[in-house]
Amino acid sequence: MSPVAAVSDVSLSGADTSIVIVVLCIALVALVMGFMFRKEVLAASPGSGSMQEIGGAVQEGASAYLGRQFRTLAVFAVVAFVLLLALPADDMMIRIGRSAAFLFGAVFSASIGWLGMNLATAANMRVAEAARTTGRDDGMRIAFRTGGTVGMATVGLGLLGAAVVVLVYQGDAAKVLEGFGFGAALLAMFMRVGGGIFTKAADVGADLVGKVEAGIPEDDPRNAATIADNVGDNVGDCAGMAADLFESYAVTLVAALILGTAALGDQGGLTFPLVVPAIGVITAIIGVFITKARAGENGLQAINRSFYISAAIAAVASVIAAFLFLPSSLEVTAGFALQDGAGGGEQINAAVGGAVSVVIGIVLAAFILWLTGYFTGTETKPTNDVARTSLTGPATVVLSGIGVGLESAVYTAVTIAAAIFAIFTLGGGSLIVSLFFVALAGCGLLTTVGVIVAMDTFGPVSDNAQGIAEMSGDVDGEAAQILTELDAVGNTTKAITKGIAIATAVLAATALFGSYLDAILQALETAGDASGEVLQSFLVFDPRALVGVLIGGAVVFLFSGLAINAVTRAAGAIVFEVRRQFREKPGIMDYSEKPEYARVVDICTRDSLRELATPGLLAVFAPIAVGFGLGVGALAGYLAGAIGTGVLMAVFLANAGGAWDNAKKIVEDGNFGGKGTSAHEATVIGDTVGDPFKDTAGPAINPLIKVMNLVALLIAPAIIGLTYGDGANAAIRWGIALAAFAVIVAAVVVSKRRDIAIGDSEPATAVES
Amino acid sequence: MSPVAAVSDVSLSGADTSIVIVVLCIALVALVMGFMFRKEVLAASPGSGSMQEIGGAVQEGASAYLGRQFRTLAVFAVVAFVLLLALPADDMMIRIGRSAAFLFGAVFSASIGWLGMNLATAANMRVAEAARTTGRDDGMRIAFRTGGTVGMATVGLGLLGAAVVVLVYQGDAAKVLEGFGFGAALLAMFMRVGGGIFTKAADVGADLVGKVEAGIPEDDPRNAATIADNVGDNVGDCAGMAADLFESYAVTLVAALILGTAALGDQGGLTFPLVVPAIGVITAIIGVFITKARAGENGLQAINRSFYISAAIAAVASVIAAFLFLPSSLEVTAGFALQDGAGGGEQINAAVGGAVSVVIGIVLAAFILWLTGYFTGTETKPTNDVARTSLTGPATVVLSGIGVGLESAVYTAVTIAAAIFAIFTLGGGSLIVSLFFVALAGCGLLTTVGVIVAMDTFGPVSDNAQGIAEMSGDVDGEAAQILTELDAVGNTTKAITKGIAIATAVLAATALFGSYLDAILQALETAGDASGEVLQSFLVFDPRALVGVLIGGAVVFLFSGLAINAVTRAAGAIVFEVRRQFREKPGIMDYSEKPEYARVVDICTRDSLRELATPGLLAVFAPIAVGFGLGVGALAGYLAGAIGTGVLMAVFLANAGGAWDNAKKIVEDGNFGGKGTSAHEATVIGDTVGDPFKDTAGPAINPLIKVMNLVALLIAPAIIGLTYGDGANAAIRWGIALAAFAVIVAAVVVSKRRDIAIGDSEPATAVES
Repeated sequence: MSPVAAVSDVSLSGADTSIVIVVLCIALVALVMGFMFRKEVLAASPGSGSMQEIGGAVQEGASAYLGRQFRTLAVFAVVAFVLLLALPADDMMIRIGRSAAFLFGAVFSASIGWLGMNLATAANMRVAEAARTTGRDDGMRIAFRTGGTVGMATVGLGLLGAAVVVLVYQGDAAKVLEGFGFGAALLAMFMRVGGGIFTKAADVGADLVGKVEAGIPEDDPRNAATIADNVGDNVGDCAGMAADLFESYAVTLVAALILGTAALGDQGGLTFPLVVPAIGVITAIIGVFITKARAGENGLQAINRSFYISAAIAAVASVIAAFLFLPSSLEVTAGFALQDGAGGGEQINAAVGGAVSVVIGIVLAAFILWLTGYFTGTETKPTNDVARTSLTGPATVVLSGIGVGLESAVYTAVTIAAAIFAIFTLGGGSLIVSLFFVALAGCGLLTTVGVIVAMDTFGPVSDNAQGIAEMSGDVDGEAAQILTELDAVGNTTKAITKGIAIATAVLAATALFGSYLDAILQALETAGDASGEVLQSFLVFDPRALVGVLIGGAVVFLFSGLAINAVTRAAGAIVFEVRRQFREKPGIMDYSEKPEYARVVDICTRDSLRELATPGLLAVFAPIAVGFGLGVGALAGYLAGAIGTGVLMAVFLANAGGAWDNAKKIVEDGNFGGKGTSAHEATVIGDTVGDPFKDTAGPAINPLIKVMNLVALLIAPAIIGLTYGDGANAAIRWGIALAAFAVIVAAVVVSKRRDIAIGDSEPATAVES
Repeated sequence: MSPVAAVSDVSLSGADTSIVIVVLCIALVALVMGFMFRKEVLAASPGSGSMQEIGGAVQEGASAYLGRQFRTLAVFAVVAFVLLLALPADDMMIRIGRSAAFLFGAVFSASIGWLGMNLATAANMRVAEAARTTGRDDGMRIAFRTGGTVGMATVGLGLLGAAVVVLVYQGDAAKVLEGFGFGAALLAMFMRVGGGIFTKAADVGADLVGKVEAGIPEDDPRNAATIADNVGDNVGDCAGMAADLFESYAVTLVAALILGTAALGDQGGLTFPLVVPAIGVITAIIGVFITKARAGENGLQAINRSFYISAAIAAVASVIAAFLFLPSSLEVTAGFALQDGAGGGEQINAAVGGAVSVVIGIVLAAFILWLTGYFTGTETKPTNDVARTSLTGPATVVLSGIGVGLESAVYTAVTIAAAIFAIFTLGGGSLIVSLFFVALAGCGLLTTVGVIVAMDTFGPVSDNAQGIAEMSGDVDGEAAQILTELDAVGNTTKAITKGIAIATAVLAATALFGSYLDAILQALETAGDASGEVLQSFLVFDPRALVGVLIGGAVVFLFSGLAINAVTRAAGAIVFEVRRQFREKPGIMDYSEKPEYARVVDICTRDSLRELATPGLLAVFAPIAVGFGLGVGALAGYLAGAIGTGVLMAVFLANAGGAWDNAKKIVEDGNFGGKGTSAHEATVIGDTVGDPFKDTAGPAINPLIKVMNLVALLIAPAIIGLTYGDGANAAIRWGIALAAFAVIVAAVVVSKRRDIAIGDSEPATAVES
């Protein structure tokens, strides 16, 4: 009667088991490929002594930071593990499995971050050396294979984890996987926030004193913040992004498996969501292998070509798989279980629906890639318009960048909305089936993740390679030009992959949102009939849902504000420190004294670890406060508001930042007056404003919306249990809500205190140095 | 059976008719009081010849602008009138009445804007003269009575329009009033956008060239943009804000009467929503009369005291009225008509519920006033923190201001959300009743509008008074100090009333959102039973609603981006013009030549009228495209997304701008280095970024969300008619949607074209002048 199959009834047939085992093998192949790519990178020459020395300092700083970060995060992970064990679940085995899966998700997420950082810090000097000795193609290959290693690890570990859980838990896999996704997302969020604060505090601090005040170029060894800046590229852009995309991967798989179980049961619900990403693994391997710039071709064209070719192969293969694995005829019920007799059974062709959904996901990836490139590229109109406003000063640069960011957010959000609406029409009016199709579109997007991670990692590696070359002084002439080109390519790939990360996050969050509905439906079955009341609270008109939408959007704003404030504060501390070093060591400017790089790295490490707690706690405890306090309807509205505002804010921040970054490059290339003019200074200010936008707050919103959805999914049964039926207990419910609210308030208050302390500890006269 | 009374059954009893007539008389009293205040202002001496000359130039520019604006808007109004006539309604009388009411709403809105501008431009020189001759108290009284006139006109015309319609149409009044509200909101939105672009293009342009490049102070007569800047204060801050608050007033009344009719029928549903604002009229008169600074007291304290006293009286009187006019026992049905048998009838005490709701509205007004003051005041921590970041340059000033804006948006939104949730709990589980209570909270907020308009108008009047004094050179010593104090007070009142305007907008929009539900319920009764399908599409989980949330938020982003871009573009044109005048008339700097003020006013007028179309069309046509294309569920999600993102964005923009403005003042008062330092320059840049935030995009969002809700309310029956039942016609439905979408795309494309033209028409070398 209910379209939601009792979960534990679903089990893998013999054929299904074979399919999952094949998927498992493909996951292992990905890991082996990653290992091979890594060996190839490490086999290259690490370069001259001074290059190795600088690279070593960067590696040391990055390792020290990540090590300390993991120790801090271990505390959070243990607390989350204990809370997770305390949450109700169908039986003890699922509860233990879920908590164990949480740990695996967290450890995998951390490992990929570590691997990415570690290899990138080894690869940077090798890319510089290759550019110096064997030429561009070798440098590019090393940089892209570095990314390939991380990409393979991302898809390999993601698929491995999901496949193993499905094999072991079969019909209950979805519940256990909630833990896996939560672990991955929670760790990724903290790494995104912490790494993002580190990298931008160092970058902004270095630019403010170096470029603006002292008038020395970027990566100049006289700037005490230079090493910290390079460390930041690795812990933020590299470790953070890798963990983020791994988390998107894991979470999308989780949502697809939950909804697949509910929508299709054993008619492919547990297998097809694994088959699509397995196809993506194979196409990603192809993508990494075929990336090679032809003679006279820009590196970016080569990378883009690989992306589009591998995406096209994935699309064709997924369509074939859909017809092989999904039923051609599926009876769906319009509406869902709560709404008795709302519509008769309708027949849909699930194979066609699934195939179209996956293809929509892949096309969406390609389109977003193009759209992001349009709004942040150096050749396109929006960025050039921003650059032109530098003629009327920094204020107009800031305003026009904000305009570009807002506008690009609209097109991205409307595109994603159109994709979701189109997918919805395939579901025959059934909520669960159409949400499953949304999850499949997410899986389609995932087929591109291997290449996307490779593209993204390319950015910090080539950025660092140029930095090391510049600082060592051992690279010049054609080799320096090669590294500048690779750096520019890396900047662009880094910017455009952000769009994909956001699109993945939205689809994953929407699918998770559907899983939340599924969790409530199941909880209501056991907690007695309160369907009318619950149903009403889910209507957008209901003040509860509407209040939820407001609060959900507000949390995204608060999270963004906290992240930006953290960077502003931490960068201020760096500025004071670098100014102090210039003042107390006057020999720095004529190279007769060496700046204390390590002190700046220390300050960045200390500040970013201190600052990551508040936004992290907000993400976890806000849905708890809303859900237990205002009910499941308000929590549903909350998630909708957070997804809606989250995608807009994330794209706005990323693309405004990207546009400012490249507007600066356009002026530096000699337009509108070129370097050293007031126009250039105006774009440098714009770029500095954009730094925490695009590399701290913006990207951290991706894991944020998924963490919040996962928390909602995990606590839904407990809320229903405490609100309706025999276990209803308003005192406990409100107690939990108020405790969660108190945690948030305390975290925000503590972060405000800090504000004063830092401001007052530095004499205002430092400004005159 | 249905809790929604068939509307035309409701009629006014004899006693009710008497009540409405009393309300009508109170409305007339307000208009008479306004007339008296006006006479008092005009009776004061207009000052020296040169003051009158300058004031006359400002008045001339403002009149010319508003005149041209009204001619432009008349075209839009006629088109809207025709479309409105074409929309279905229950019978022809309602249709005609609604269209006529639209015209009245639009004309009232325009008249109040005109009156505000007209009187303010006469009052500014009188305030300056009073400060010079008779002292602070007289100057303050004239400025506050100017605001009082506008305030009285606002509440008088709003209440008059609503009372007349209720008297004439009785039970059908709500439908007719939709037209009144729509007319008021549409005009106000255009005036907000157009005036906002004018004022900030002039202000930003004047500051960029005057303060930053030429190093001359604000309001210096050598700056060709000075007159335009003063004109802008009047057409933007004065006319725009007055129309905006009138519109909020009208729309809240409309929503309260629609929901009152549905929730209470003839048990006070048509009278109590009029009684509460009538009480507000009386307390506002008291408020204006008692505003007088005691010896040694700051003007702001006096104004705040009046506000709090009149709010307290209004609260007490409203509680008494609730017990007199609302039933103590009301049977409500949990849920709503679509959901048969979802809950039994429950008894609630509507008098208590209504009284508490009104008081919550008034307390909300007082709290928001305080909160906005905290985040934007010169004495408080957030603004001082922003000022401190000027030590590390403009980029950190911009970032910290954005942080303050984001944070304050969160607290404001969460406060409003808490108020709505608290009110919801009073409604006994009935959607319509609890939404009616939300509308009553809006009415509670309205009781403060008379004083709020007076406070707000105080801002531009005292700003202009100082400007005229400065330019005329006839005022110095103690008088100049008085004007500086009044200007500072005006800056603060202007900033804090923005918070109230936003809170009013959110409550009005939420109540309208409820009216939209009511409209759909009624339409479904006539268009056949499709309740299951419609119901499902209203669930936040449904991809349609979720897609709506995304698009609704996106439209707020696009609207803000368009408004900010318009200012950036128009300000750029001003910068080039002022630079040209400095270059071509070198005598300006030593006062031997006079700048051509009129040319700058012309450019502002031309540009702002050209720029207001795109955001205006977006606001009207986006809900049409979504509603007809994706259905009523998507449109509901759209409205929820727009309200949620809208309130956050509006507060963010207003408070970030306010904080930057006062951070600049803090530095100018000698902190962190004081005037002329790089810290000061950094805060000037921050202030310039904030100008279009706080005075263009931010305030225009208030009418935006109401216009969109009203459009949804008006088209809901047509959408249902074309989707379900006999009249279903997908071709027409999609035709309308695509046509609306095409209008938006065309408007955006045209506005982008403009971009290029302006950029290219000026030689880049102009920067060197």
